[in-house]
Amino acid sequence: MTGLNEDHKVSFKPQRSFATIFKSGIKEALFPDDPFSFLKKEPSSLRRAKLAMNYFVPASEWLPKYNLQLFKYDVLAGITIASLAIPQGISYAKLANIPPIIGLYSSFVPPLIYAVFGSSKYVAIGTLAASSLLISSTLEEKVSPTENPDLYLGLVFTATLISGLLQLALGLLRLGILVDFLSHATITGFMGGTATLICLQQLKGIFGLKHFTTHTSIVDVLQAIFSHTNEWRWQSAVVGVIFLVFLLFTRYVKEKRPNLFWVSAIAPMLCVIIGCIFAYFAHAEKHGIEIVGELKRGLNPLSFKDINFDPKYISAPIRAGIITAFIALAEGIAIGRSFAIMNNEQTDGNKEMVAFGLMNIVGSFTSCYLTSGPFSKSAVNYNAGAKTAMTNVVMAFCMLLVLLFLAPLFKYTPLVTLSAIIISAVVGLIDYQKAYHLFKIDKFDFLICMAAFLGVIFISMEMGIMISVGISLMRALLYIARPASCKLGYIPDSMLYRDVEQYPGATGIPGMLLLQLGSPIYFANCSYLRDRILRYIRDEQDISNPQANDIVYVLLDLGGVTSIDTTGVEVLFEIQKNMDAKKMKMILINPRLAVMEKLITGRFIDKIGKKSVFLSVEDAIEACKFSLETLKVTNGENVVNT
Amino acid sequence: MTGLNEDHKVSFKPQRSFATIFKSGIKEALFPDDPFSFLKKEPSSLRRAKLAMNYFVPASEWLPKYNLQLFKYDVLAGITIASLAIPQGISYAKLANIPPIIGLYSSFVPPLIYAVFGSSKYVAIGTLAASSLLISSTLEEKVSPTENPDLYLGLVFTATLISGLLQLALGLLRLGILVDFLSHATITGFMGGTATLICLQQLKGIFGLKHFTTHTSIVDVLQAIFSHTNEWRWQSAVVGVIFLVFLLFTRYVKEKRPNLFWVSAIAPMLCVIIGCIFAYFAHAEKHGIEIVGELKRGLNPLSFKDINFDPKYISAPIRAGIITAFIALAEGIAIGRSFAIMNNEQTDGNKEMVAFGLMNIVGSFTSCYLTSGPFSKSAVNYNAGAKTAMTNVVMAFCMLLVLLFLAPLFKYTPLVTLSAIIISAVVGLIDYQKAYHLFKIDKFDFLICMAAFLGVIFISMEMGIMISVGISLMRALLYIARPASCKLGYIPDSMLYRDVEQYPGATGIPGMLLLQLGSPIYFANCSYLRDRILRYIRDEQDISNPQANDIVYVLLDLGGVTSIDTTGVEVLFEIQKNMDAKKMKMILINPRLAVMEKLITGRFIDKIGKKSVFLSVEDAIEACKFSLETLKVTNGENVVNT
Repeated sequence: MTGLNEDHKVSFKPQRSFATIFKSGIKEALFPDDPFSFLKKEPSSLRRAKLAMNYFVPASEWLPKYNLQLFKYDVLAGITIASLAIPQGISYAKLANIPPIIGLYSSFVPPLIYAVFGSSKYVAIGTLAASSLLISSTLEEKVSPTENPDLYLGLVFTATLISGLLQLALGLLRLGILVDFLSHATITGFMGGTATLICLQQLKGIFGLKHFTTHTSIVDVLQAIFSHTNEWRWQSAVVGVIFLVFLLFTRYVKEKRPNLFWVSAIAPMLCVIIGCIFAYFAHAEKHGIEIVGELKRGLNPLSFKDINFDPKYISAPIRAGIITAFIALAEGIAIGRSFAIMNNEQTDGNKEMVAFGLMNIVGSFTSCYLTSGPFSKSAVNYNAGAKTAMTNVVMAFCMLLVLLFLAPLFKYTPLVTLSAIIISAVVGLIDYQKAYHLFKIDKFDFLICMAAFLGVIFISMEMGIMISVGISLMRALLYIARPASCKLGYIPDSMLYRDVEQYPGATGIPGMLLLQLGSPIYFANCSYLRDRILRYIRDEQDISNPQANDIVYVLLDLGGVTSIDTTGVEVLFEIQKNMDAKKMKMILINPRLAVMEKLITGRFIDKIGKKSVFLSVEDAIEACKFSLETLKVTNGENVVNT
Repeated sequence: MTGLNEDHKVSFKPQRSFATIFKSGIKEALFPDDPFSFLKKEPSSLRRAKLAMNYFVPASEWLPKYNLQLFKYDVLAGITIASLAIPQGISYAKLANIPPIIGLYSSFVPPLIYAVFGSSKYVAIGTLAASSLLISSTLEEKVSPTENPDLYLGLVFTATLISGLLQLALGLLRLGILVDFLSHATITGFMGGTATLICLQQLKGIFGLKHFTTHTSIVDVLQAIFSHTNEWRWQSAVVGVIFLVFLLFTRYVKEKRPNLFWVSAIAPMLCVIIGCIFAYFAHAEKHGIEIVGELKRGLNPLSFKDINFDPKYISAPIRAGIITAFIALAEGIAIGRSFAIMNNEQTDGNKEMVAFGLMNIVGSFTSCYLTSGPFSKSAVNYNAGAKTAMTNVVMAFCMLLVLLFLAPLFKYTPLVTLSAIIISAVVGLIDYQKAYHLFKIDKFDFLICMAAFLGVIFISMEMGIMISVGISLMRALLYIARPASCKLGYIPDSMLYRDVEQYPGATGIPGMLLLQLGSPIYFANCSYLRDRILRYIRDEQDISNPQANDIVYVLLDLGGVTSIDTTGVEVLFEIQKNMDAKKMKMILINPRLAVMEKLITGRFIDKIGKKSVFLSVEDAIEACKFSLETLKVTNGENVVNT
């Protein structure tokens, strides 16, 4: 077997220095998209400073190039999203059990911050239905929003501040990686579950109930609705159903004729206006249709002093802040990425996190609660022809006018209108088609999705998301612990060796067993791999098998093994020892850079000899065949001699 | 590009049924070593029942073939380990702060159970130093062993029962996979840290202190030793040092002359005997040398009634039970595996767990505390020539004699002798060479090891192991989230394409970018992979790079991708969309079975076309080259025409 592998030399370079490995590891872990590549190309330090400025403050890049033509588009889009922001702001604030005006405040300051620091052109800033409900369901465990509204509101700002700080920290530490652990399946299930809960909760508004539960689980909500049937108001229900049918019809129009998207975009605003007029002239309150009530004129008051770190309550805002931070990031980053891909642009999730973080920190000081880039609003923004983040500024300007002059007019908005708006907004989040798609492609993903969905509706929103992420991580660890390996066979009339299960035509090679390992070899899977390899050998040698193969060489194709740790190297020694006892020889094929370094440092290459390492399957098989022939000839001679 | 990939056909088989995939998944996850393969070969159901019996009760296999020749070896080995079991039993019981006789009981019943159900020939059953200390340090938080000894002892049995039940459950559910997450690095660090703590704690015995701390952290222990200098007894210290030097000398002898292993094996027993005689004649108690005290004659009393599930205390035995269960399993299974590999035999970790579980459950009912197969004792057993599990029976018989007749003689054993025995036993567990080895091969493994070591000595044993496992899991998740990928280049004068970083001689292919992906593609890493692939494309097209390559084809070698989930498929769609926008074409090479199924069901193959999937890199490159040539010719003609 000598000399045959000389043609294609395996690289036996010694281990790179720790600094090199560490640097490349950090780079791949935290900077996979190489965000500062532009700095390398630029020799002038002044230009570099400018580029860095453009990187950290994207507005400094697009603003100087901004022109009237772009502005025309942005004004139109900005007004469209503002008309959505007003009813949604008021409605979602009701979901969070805070004064409706806070919802309007939240569409004023945060969009301005995002316009400066955000890198997406199409993301429209606003509050989220799911986060609003999560905040109220978590905080209500500690403080009642009706009995102690100021304290409750203070804790909402505290949760917002905590979210913002967490998002900023994650972005600066470039830990966008954590958001990756929220899979599409988890998000689909969570959104569907939350939307179901929100719809059910809105039955309170539709039926005009006065008493309700603070729990979010479906059982509690249904119980609350049906235990207060005496409070049901038919007047309220009729009005609600009419609005809901109208809103759902505009959604239907949008789906059939995408260029009529604006119909569904302005419909909520239209509902609010009609609702106000109707309530004003019909004296709706007297007929059991509740209205929003006084909205004070004026801009966001400062809210430093409301932020509350009282240890008695702090656990609730911390929990709410952490979970909503992740949900808001997942939604905001995902939408930004989708648009970027559609337009062949690049996004940097970590940079977006910094923008979201800053926006929520400043928001928490100016009477805003948690904001992000909601799917629905951003899609409207995109469809309305937004060109730059200036749309957010236009929206903020509209909100400024509303807050300064028009706010009191919304006093008469019937609550039932808001419920209809919320239902029509979230009903699209129940994505049963996606769930079916998951079921068809991957049963385990479907399980993860259903865990989130059922967890949210039957236990709580927090538990739902945690159970689902837990199952996802367990699967991830199972992938690690049980990496796929396969036996390769020769595909006739080719030079190829492929999985015999996938290509049943592939044939075994006499005297050899060719195995392909995948994934890193390390502590969590190495004893499995040892068992599995020994089982392949046993299966191959099985005496009851008429086609049994007397294995002399076990060839391990390591091309798919990306790394190995010390436990992994030790297990290779064990396997080698076991093979030795069976009079077999281990051959390694194509170890990759990081693996080869460890094998050399761990002295495994010394143990099996450099001659037992080949660069390609073909080389290895040829060499083994040659040596088997030699062996046979020698044995043959021995027989003749005796 | 038509027809060229016809030579080696890619398999486009539709997805296997869910049942098939699920069954093979379960098999790989829980039965990787195919333990019931023997049943398949055997047609007769009577023989199969017998084989199954042999599988579940290994004693039924070896006992009928047992003979006098084997028994001679086993008696010798059994007596050797019994002579080790007596002093270690008494000493480790002192570590656990329970009456010394419990240590002797624990070497009587459990070995008998293991002899019936255990599958290893060489494992010798006994108590563990680390677990003993962990039990006492956890339970002492709730109950003082001096003030309330009966309650304390009851909780020790409860912890043992919980350990046993957990071990049995893990074994029956075939969750041996969980033990895989304790890496060698974690165990090395944990053992080193525990041994350090134990040695320091024994200074109490060496100096003859009466007052001591119940905390295990190094700071507390050193403080306790030096704050009671007035209690130091020079007599005790002198005796202790003499014994310790003697014991360490016998260990040294064993290392230099491995065939004199029995010298160090019987040395502890010798120390106990000499210590007893000395203490009896010198009236050692009067000179500040404490003795063990009364040991009652008689066999293990039943301890059902002592088991205590009082909710006031239950959290401590549950914690102690869970952690010691894992430590005991990790040690016992590892030693069994090592011997099996040395002798080219097979082990089944899950079966061993069942044996350990039964042994501890029965033990907890018969006044025994946690037992396992300790490294040191099992090594002595192996060296002494053990042939079957009968050695455990012989040891148990020796213990029977001791308990019935000799126990009272050990009354005079000086505590300082026990301290010397413990120190000499655990000092070998501080494996600084292994730690240095980790440092050399893998800095991250060294970090994991040091986290366990420092965590144990500075915080607590539980925290040490948890921090270390936490870091290991984080690394495992990082491997998942950031799988290695590389750019392949052509190795001149070969048919091979390899990593350009590893083989700097490899050259790029004009018009193409060939990338190799490793590991599964799924939710946790797919957005990373998308960023990374887009970065490869950007780097390749970099305008400031004079060797820039106009990429027409991006070839993804999926040979190393073992699976993909729905999020992964969606990201492939996204990448494809992005490439479309860049006028590039995606080519897939050698998707494996599970991946191909998902790509077909997810309609990704329909999207890119079957013509874009190749079985080998060579085929794909040839086809792309051909099509590039055609393109050039066509363009050329166009130029001529215009």
